[in-house]
Amino acid sequence: MSGDENAVLRANAAFYQAFAARDLRAMTGLWAREAQVVCIHPGWDVLVGRDAVLGSWRDILANPENPQLECRNARAHLFDDVALVTCHEVLSEGVLVAANLFRREDDGWRMIHHQSGPLSVLPSPPPSRPSGTVH
Amino acid sequence: MSGDENAVLRANAAFYQAFAARDLRAMTGLWAREAQVVCIHPGWDVLVGRDAVLGSWRDILANPENPQLECRNARAHLFDDVALVTCHEVLSEGVLVAANLFRREDDGWRMIHHQSGPLSVLPSPPPSRPSGTVH
Repeated sequence: MSGDENAVLRANAAFYQAFAARDLRAMTGLWAREAQVVCIHPGWDVLVGRDAVLGSWRDILANPENPQLECRNARAHLFDDVALVTCHEVLSEGVLVAANLFRREDDGWRMIHHQSGPLSVLPSPPPSRPSGTVH
Repeated sequence: MSGDENAVLRANAAFYQAFAARDLRAMTGLWAREAQVVCIHPGWDVLVGRDAVLGSWRDILANPENPQLECRNARAHLFDDVALVTCHEVLSEGVLVAANLFRREDDGWRMIHHQSGPLSVLPSPPPSRPSGTVH
């Protein structure tokens, strides 16, 4: 595994650690400052820009009803200065599948996009022909 | 709007045109050849690599039960040689929200990632506090 891949996976882990710790300061710090940021929470419309994205995380982290989740099966794909990490977000009531996008900024890899949505098939073992909704 | 932004939005439109026309040859041509490709259909697990991704599109495009959809509200965000397009996918029975990622290759912008999932709020007017599932 390359140094960049390790660094991106650490950035991805930091995102889930900030979520687990309900740590808005850490969450704020890991999103990009130089580039535009975009976020699509499950069921939500697209949020664009730090104010909208970090405002959503402020509300989510402050909501005691939001469940804990565990990141599993994170896998990084590097495209020069942008990296895509896919992973499962395991909750007690189900599994979400997420794509997290990072960009190399001056002080490290910073998140520029997060999207997650429900997985309608079990992630393990990998299905050869998923039976979920297609489009 | 920049030339790159226009080009990326045209690549995004070509993706939906290929879907509407059930055109596997066009769909195959617009995915990246140099870089890794990733796809998350609604409810499905992550697909990685041209064989898995294009195999899924072959099955989807050949399935007469898959509905038509219309791309609306496409918006491009450029990060040097990678671009993220968000949009709504409007079907007769609901709306999906999608993120499509493109990378500049030698012969133009090619898709490297697609993810879409159900929107549980109406996209217009934009909700200030979406009521969908959060995580």
